[in-house]
Amino acid sequence: MEKKDKNRPLILVTNDDGISANGIKALVSEMKKLGDVIIVAPDKSQSGMGHAITINATLRIEKTNFHDVLQEYSCTGTPVDCVKVAVNKILHRKPDLCVSGINHGSNISINVIYSGTMSAAVEGAIEHIPSIGFSLCDYNSEADLSVSKKYVFKIAKKILETGLPEGVCLNVNIPSGNEIRGIKISRQAKATWMEELDERKDPSGKSYFWLTGKFKNFESGNTETDVWAIENNYISVVPVHFDMTAHHALKKLKLLENEN
Amino acid sequence: MEKKDKNRPLILVTNDDGISANGIKALVSEMKKLGDVIIVAPDKSQSGMGHAITINATLRIEKTNFHDVLQEYSCTGTPVDCVKVAVNKILHRKPDLCVSGINHGSNISINVIYSGTMSAAVEGAIEHIPSIGFSLCDYNSEADLSVSKKYVFKIAKKILETGLPEGVCLNVNIPSGNEIRGIKISRQAKATWMEELDERKDPSGKSYFWLTGKFKNFESGNTETDVWAIENNYISVVPVHFDMTAHHALKKLKLLENEN
Repeated sequence: MEKKDKNRPLILVTNDDGISANGIKALVSEMKKLGDVIIVAPDKSQSGMGHAITINATLRIEKTNFHDVLQEYSCTGTPVDCVKVAVNKILHRKPDLCVSGINHGSNISINVIYSGTMSAAVEGAIEHIPSIGFSLCDYNSEADLSVSKKYVFKIAKKILETGLPEGVCLNVNIPSGNEIRGIKISRQAKATWMEELDERKDPSGKSYFWLTGKFKNFESGNTETDVWAIENNYISVVPVHFDMTAHHALKKLKLLENEN
Repeated sequence: MEKKDKNRPLILVTNDDGISANGIKALVSEMKKLGDVIIVAPDKSQSGMGHAITINATLRIEKTNFHDVLQEYSCTGTPVDCVKVAVNKILHRKPDLCVSGINHGSNISINVIYSGTMSAAVEGAIEHIPSIGFSLCDYNSEADLSVSKKYVFKIAKKILETGLPEGVCLNVNIPSGNEIRGIKISRQAKATWMEELDERKDPSGKSYFWLTGKFKNFESGNTETDVWAIENNYISVVPVHFDMTAHHALKKLKLLENEN
């Protein structure tokens, strides 16, 4: 950490597609224009890991050289582990910004809860760090990131300047293609996955399953939602927090207090 | 499923400590008094898995006989996978109730986000099933569950009768000991883990880490919170939902829409 320029912001970069993915390369290239970059990212894909942490197993950290930055480490753990390791073991202080991504695939609507990319950003918010998760709505790991990069830079720059409300991070999803109409502040759409379990037989004839499914939006046409924003070629920005309390249900449940 | 009594509720049971844990045994024994029980639970401990799902690997399901119930299966996946497998592969319909636990350890406050137990309940809510996660605030896997069982039965019975608001599940935490003063509807306290990485050397001298830390409550004395309820020997019941949107921050962030 000695070489850090004291006038430049310190930016922590992570992701869930692994430290050598194209998405994190694109993110790092933009963050280097804004500050000194430290990378702590998973050593392999951690997609769908949600807010998992490693408590039943041990973690390893290794210095790597995939990117030309101040310091970089791969970690055997989840995206959330990476943020914890970065803050508590490597940086020994809060960075000025924590960014995660660019994820190869959408994290709109209910996907926020399954997403390793977004869970890293949420963990940043838990650690009181202004944090942003970036996702490109294209599952192709070779997708063109040039348009995304422009907006990633703008949004990160703005948040470095203005900060974020306490306990809030951003879920930024970028439509694929070049026809972006701008940025739309949105809320998480009500939607779900209609699951299918793709059953196959292994060479010895025993069944195994791939989890798969179809995305179903329950709020089609609702212009407040992130799904609408993406479908209409806007970048959706959803403020996300980690208070899971359903405050609207507190009063209704009071009757349970009589069950003694 | 042929043997199911059509007049009795169908109850799905899962957990994150694994299908043979004491906690799930206690939960199953109470649920059998209330309905026909199907178990789909992890084949090993999945603590701290949060809302992780298995998308980069395959799943296996195996019929087991740890419990005397209608049907039971162990699954190689996470608690959330178990709920998806149960609903989409085994039941082919929604159960009347989904319960998870009894977890050996507290899931109050911020722990809700790291908890496999609670993520199974949240997944139940996503699937439109009345769902409850039960946790005993005692990390000892041999802890006495007799007092907990009484309340688990009462709460599950009540929710079978009354249902839950759409998209809401319950995070039920039970204090350890026998001096329970009743049930308190609470909200998630603002708290965090002050992380420490316990560094050790393997036999070849290379470092590895255990994630550990101290729980820090930022709302000490606030009677609305789940931490207060537990500290004062109440069972805390927090209604939990999966809308991660920080609605209070939507307006403030509108300025980002100018960044084009």
